[in-house]
Amino acid sequence: MINTPVEIIPLGGLGEFGMNCLALRYDGSMIIIDVGLMFSEVGHYGVDIMIPDFSYVEEHRDELLAIVLTHSHEDHIGALPFLLQAVNVPVYGTPYTLSVADRKLDEHKLTDCTQTHTIHAGESFTVGPFTVEFIRVSHSTVDCVALAVTTPVGVIIHTGDYKFDETPVCGDAINIERLKEYGRRGVLALLSDSTNVERPGRMPSERAVIPALEDIFDQTDGRIFVSCFASSIHRIQIILDLADDFGRSVFPVGRGMLRSLETADQNGFLRIPDGLLLTASEYKQTNSEDVVVLATGCQGEPMAAMSRMANQNHKQAIIEAGDTVILSARQIPGNEKSISRLINECYKRNAFVYDSSSARIHVSGHGAQEDLRLMIESTRPRYFIPIHGEYRQLYRHKLYACQELDYEPENVILMQSGEVLALDGERALISDKIQVGKIYMDDSRSVIVDEAVMRDRKHLAYDGIIIPVLVVNKETGEMKTDPEIATCGYMLLDGNEEWMDELKEVINQTLTTVPYDERSDMSAFKEKIRLGLKRYIQKLTKQRPTILPVIMQV
Amino acid sequence: MINTPVEIIPLGGLGEFGMNCLALRYDGSMIIIDVGLMFSEVGHYGVDIMIPDFSYVEEHRDELLAIVLTHSHEDHIGALPFLLQAVNVPVYGTPYTLSVADRKLDEHKLTDCTQTHTIHAGESFTVGPFTVEFIRVSHSTVDCVALAVTTPVGVIIHTGDYKFDETPVCGDAINIERLKEYGRRGVLALLSDSTNVERPGRMPSERAVIPALEDIFDQTDGRIFVSCFASSIHRIQIILDLADDFGRSVFPVGRGMLRSLETADQNGFLRIPDGLLLTASEYKQTNSEDVVVLATGCQGEPMAAMSRMANQNHKQAIIEAGDTVILSARQIPGNEKSISRLINECYKRNAFVYDSSSARIHVSGHGAQEDLRLMIESTRPRYFIPIHGEYRQLYRHKLYACQELDYEPENVILMQSGEVLALDGERALISDKIQVGKIYMDDSRSVIVDEAVMRDRKHLAYDGIIIPVLVVNKETGEMKTDPEIATCGYMLLDGNEEWMDELKEVINQTLTTVPYDERSDMSAFKEKIRLGLKRYIQKLTKQRPTILPVIMQV
Repeated sequence: MINTPVEIIPLGGLGEFGMNCLALRYDGSMIIIDVGLMFSEVGHYGVDIMIPDFSYVEEHRDELLAIVLTHSHEDHIGALPFLLQAVNVPVYGTPYTLSVADRKLDEHKLTDCTQTHTIHAGESFTVGPFTVEFIRVSHSTVDCVALAVTTPVGVIIHTGDYKFDETPVCGDAINIERLKEYGRRGVLALLSDSTNVERPGRMPSERAVIPALEDIFDQTDGRIFVSCFASSIHRIQIILDLADDFGRSVFPVGRGMLRSLETADQNGFLRIPDGLLLTASEYKQTNSEDVVVLATGCQGEPMAAMSRMANQNHKQAIIEAGDTVILSARQIPGNEKSISRLINECYKRNAFVYDSSSARIHVSGHGAQEDLRLMIESTRPRYFIPIHGEYRQLYRHKLYACQELDYEPENVILMQSGEVLALDGERALISDKIQVGKIYMDDSRSVIVDEAVMRDRKHLAYDGIIIPVLVVNKETGEMKTDPEIATCGYMLLDGNEEWMDELKEVINQTLTTVPYDERSDMSAFKEKIRLGLKRYIQKLTKQRPTILPVIMQV
Repeated sequence: MINTPVEIIPLGGLGEFGMNCLALRYDGSMIIIDVGLMFSEVGHYGVDIMIPDFSYVEEHRDELLAIVLTHSHEDHIGALPFLLQAVNVPVYGTPYTLSVADRKLDEHKLTDCTQTHTIHAGESFTVGPFTVEFIRVSHSTVDCVALAVTTPVGVIIHTGDYKFDETPVCGDAINIERLKEYGRRGVLALLSDSTNVERPGRMPSERAVIPALEDIFDQTDGRIFVSCFASSIHRIQIILDLADDFGRSVFPVGRGMLRSLETADQNGFLRIPDGLLLTASEYKQTNSEDVVVLATGCQGEPMAAMSRMANQNHKQAIIEAGDTVILSARQIPGNEKSISRLINECYKRNAFVYDSSSARIHVSGHGAQEDLRLMIESTRPRYFIPIHGEYRQLYRHKLYACQELDYEPENVILMQSGEVLALDGERALISDKIQVGKIYMDDSRSVIVDEAVMRDRKHLAYDGIIIPVLVVNKETGEMKTDPEIATCGYMLLDGNEEWMDELKEVINQTLTTVPYDERSDMSAFKEKIRLGLKRYIQKLTKQRPTILPVIMQV
């Protein structure tokens, strides 16, 4: 490299959805953009969430100057408390983003020791060699920004999550002029959201769901239950407005929804007409045709408001015959079964359900191909780096830039988390590979679940456990009594009652191969017992239970 | 009831997808229509498949005259061996369906003791009071039939899985005339597939995928890898034909695909041009532009051909730069992650991937709303009973019949598995409720996993296990040594090394509450130890590991 390079180091979110986190580093100074989490696919192993491995940041803690947040979704700010526990640096974000982040800091008792700086869209700040400007972008939540980071090597634009919505419901439209201005002055690198690269065309405005929702409101006499993500502020505003137009009051249910209404209202992102919202007791006194229940639980989460109301298991409201249920959200992959369960329960109550497969009541917050084109064409970067997606999306985004926008393949860099891209103004090269990974967390108890424990749990779940227990004289090595075998989650094949006796016999035979004087080496002794049983069980039954011998010396 | 009623008793498949099984019963005679399985959502607990609870059939084994199969999909025939192990009765099916079933019987060593009767579409047979006619219907696999069952009370039509495809690729078109003839003569009840009731319009013919596949073949110079379900015979024929048209040979990979080609070929459902198929060694000598690899694994199953070829882990073929991959199938809910993994791997090899989200290369085998309308209008049943779907589909199917086809709600019967519907020619009423349910099976080892074992495995997986071990003098009740604690999958909070000592102390304190003379009641003694630890652990850590005390008497 000719000059000191600026380094772009994704710590998560490239090659996977969620856990977005990226470092920018120049000459011993570093900032982190976003600190997201990933929701767990392995909840049955006691793991709720995954967060990035922050080893690299901790090793370079002296260089770290700031954490900058693009918006308030969990996959961008959810791991913030865990990083702040390790490194104490100022956090920069827009007012709404920081309001959401503050609540997290509060839950983790980090409010007092964390410095936060409120930056509005359009404003800039400087830390070390980095000057960061917040540029308004459109998304499904509010107060989202792209970052234009001016470094000594050039300008790097990080889009955050975005689409081009010229007519958003809440707040300002995306500031395409400012992006173009940077484009005219010269952008070294653009890092752009790849989520919807496989969808052709433009992503419709947040307003696109209004006609279908209006139709449903128009056709409905009974109670209306609407569920959407609590963070979908545009969607919530649309529902509040429709309720108002149709002379209905709104009863918000679910902690997340109440919080969201409060935060967005305080920050001026929601317009809530006076007297529109009902309390629980007012709701009970209002006629069916005069209310909308706005609730959390659009993914069919069993403990969330919607499922509990459908199961007649909610104190404040229940779903009954003649009600209309609107699930105004996408199905997050993995949630199909729980959503289907919710829909089935509603129909069992004779309530009619609309979801995004049957009506145009959801639109994505991530741009489609023509949005992505517009971003690249506006900023005209020298280097283009697809971010925010699995490998398939990053690849297709590169392909799109090369085929549709005539980028040279060497100027579009297909990075994966952990790779270090060095840009010195002359060249771009992957100069290093650092340690990254997923840390499994039991969020409800705020602890890391280490991988060895996860492996053990997987094994336990699959075939259960067998615990042979032996009592041995610690002086002589003699057995003091017959071995016992305890089991849990282990399946006795064909109800074979004699099987346990056979296994005890296998232990006794193994014992004949361990001379008394060798029985003081406990770990070797246990391993012999384990292997003897393992071989016998596997050969006869193909089962592979965990075998955990315990030897008591008396 | 005025006359002896005919009873319709769904044993599975209503209120859930999969595990289709239904009994028809009249005056002490019974037939079973389809014996399907359901693929497991709980594979991590060592459960591969679920099958219906056959208690009701076993209790009425003397009445059972026959098992009748509508088609060869796993959700219609997969549990056949397990039912035949319990009750030995003749099995009726079309030639292709029985060919597939025969292989299952063979695997379970049931071929010799099972009587099978081949019935062609258009033919009839009589068992006891039931005369069953096989009527050709269209679906994604071949040789599928609806059943017209003439009973003393009237005709009952069971559609099996169907759509109206007047131009199928293989075999005959759906016999709409025959359905209409039954309609003219009078149908007592129609039981009709509800899978796609939420989709408007007509379901396109199996031919609908040809143009998009043709485009891909036309644009591709390199090797083509196509994956579809091995049972999708129409799709396979289309691929064979396209390969032939474009001068490519076909290399079939994967046991399921080879079997399917063989069975469909033997039954005359596939036209395989001479010399089209390649052996492994011929494949190795053929140029990229001259081959199509036709493989199993369209759901990204890690051990199936596609994933192994993408991971460079298959002996006969691998996916390389410049190859084109076509996933010609729908994503079965729950498989999104594995399919995504497969697609990512292909892109990492620089192979381009088409799936059903990016090209019209899949069409469903289940009719949409206008197909369902056509079925009801053709057969004009007195009673209509939606089958084959979750509650939401059954409900919507009823709503459709009432709103679009002017059925009276009392003539459309929304049944759930286990309900007994009695029809006597005058009335229709749910007369009873029998025991039904899912039996969890470890298919690879052909054993039932009982629910208590499943519960234990769930608990083990979530928080691991703690095994306190005590050695006690069996005469005096005195402790012979200090207690030990073994653990597996248990997470020590905050790396607290002294925690185990604390737990031993809890055990010692509990011991002070159990007088020596009460220590011979082993189960009470163990329960005290367990409860003492449970309370302590839960209070301090919120953890709920399995606690399994072992007490050795010496």
